[in-house]
Amino acid sequence: MSNTTTLYQHGTLALLVPGLLDGTITMQDLLAHGDTGIGTGEGLDGELIILEGTPYQVDSHGQVNLVSADFTLPFANSHFAAYQPLMTVENARQADLPAQIMAETRSANTFFSVKITGTFTQMRTRAVQKSAQPYQSLAKTAATQRIFTRETVTGTLLSYYSPQIFDGVAVGGFHSHFMSADHDFGGHILDFATVDGEITWQQFDSLAQHLPTQSAAYMAHDFSQDDILGAIHQAE
Amino acid sequence: MSNTTTLYQHGTLALLVPGLLDGTITMQDLLAHGDTGIGTGEGLDGELIILEGTPYQVDSHGQVNLVSADFTLPFANSHFAAYQPLMTVENARQADLPAQIMAETRSANTFFSVKITGTFTQMRTRAVQKSAQPYQSLAKTAATQRIFTRETVTGTLLSYYSPQIFDGVAVGGFHSHFMSADHDFGGHILDFATVDGEITWQQFDSLAQHLPTQSAAYMAHDFSQDDILGAIHQAE
Repeated sequence: MSNTTTLYQHGTLALLVPGLLDGTITMQDLLAHGDTGIGTGEGLDGELIILEGTPYQVDSHGQVNLVSADFTLPFANSHFAAYQPLMTVENARQADLPAQIMAETRSANTFFSVKITGTFTQMRTRAVQKSAQPYQSLAKTAATQRIFTRETVTGTLLSYYSPQIFDGVAVGGFHSHFMSADHDFGGHILDFATVDGEITWQQFDSLAQHLPTQSAAYMAHDFSQDDILGAIHQAE
Repeated sequence: MSNTTTLYQHGTLALLVPGLLDGTITMQDLLAHGDTGIGTGEGLDGELIILEGTPYQVDSHGQVNLVSADFTLPFANSHFAAYQPLMTVENARQADLPAQIMAETRSANTFFSVKITGTFTQMRTRAVQKSAQPYQSLAKTAATQRIFTRETVTGTLLSYYSPQIFDGVAVGGFHSHFMSADHDFGGHILDFATVDGEITWQQFDSLAQHLPTQSAAYMAHDFSQDDILGAIHQAE
């Protein structure tokens, strides 16, 4: 039986800040830790989402691609899905959802995932363009992001919530990616207006944090000179 | 075969700050994740160290006690020992050791453990007195610590190093406990003058972070009002 109470994380959000963007885990290895997840490719190559064991990439042209087993990632999360119903929403505003979800889950102090399947309005997503070595900082690379919009779109929002004390290690609060039901639109969610749909959630009691100790660039980097939280909050 | 590249952590250093001191893991469960470790008991009941599968507690009287399987802890680390030689030191000053160890291990960006067996001079340790509910903040409880000294003592220093980005989750930098070879002196290390001995180390590529999600007090606490890092750096 797979472990459904552990969230797996490879890399840290912090390592993206100075541009440590080498792919240090393969999609195959990431899938060994879950059938559901999000991440980004080497050089910030698009926005990834794994749903029911299938990994998709939204590239900087907005195109959705299936991801091969040997595709590599600098930062990613995965887990084995065992979602429970949380609530049904109609015309719920994005701005109201975090407070509603926190009130229902009462899980601010642990990791959990939220999955919303439904119809979203005014959805705006972004995907970053892959950069090559020598990598730039997250702030510079993120400046080349492309934004995609749909007035109405049916699909799945996959989000991970991390307690604030883990901000920098992970994204403190919610980190959400999207994939349309038709698999033709998605990315890192910037914002949407409203959603009609089903909200499910899955609480974790453990974070399995894996670090890229085989990466010489990661191991040699002096993080003390980086404004990790400042850069993250600007980019995320 | 046991996993020797994962550091297990139950709880966070942050939860000690507002005084969430209920024991939320048993020693038996902690030992399932390692034969080596450090921690504190419920209510900050002394300073714990696990060496070769045997857990010892230094209580606030300075007495060393064997720890029972059902003893509970709010915060602890453990791992399965597979130490490698790092260096032999003679008359090495404590103040010089961190820089030497960082230069040799080149592992500032991952978790590792250091074990020093040898003879230490002017060793000062502390142990906190167990408090009862309602628990006080870490700052108030730590104010009741007792300090113990030995002019010369042979024994084992067990330390965990955590990258700075994990400060607050764990103790950023080194967190060191001590146990004498005669099992009659130990605790959380405040400082020592010099050491003659063997330094070994063990690098981890993963942190298995377990949170006390079964604790209603932990789950309900509002950490946003706590000065986590300020309080930790004063107490640790």
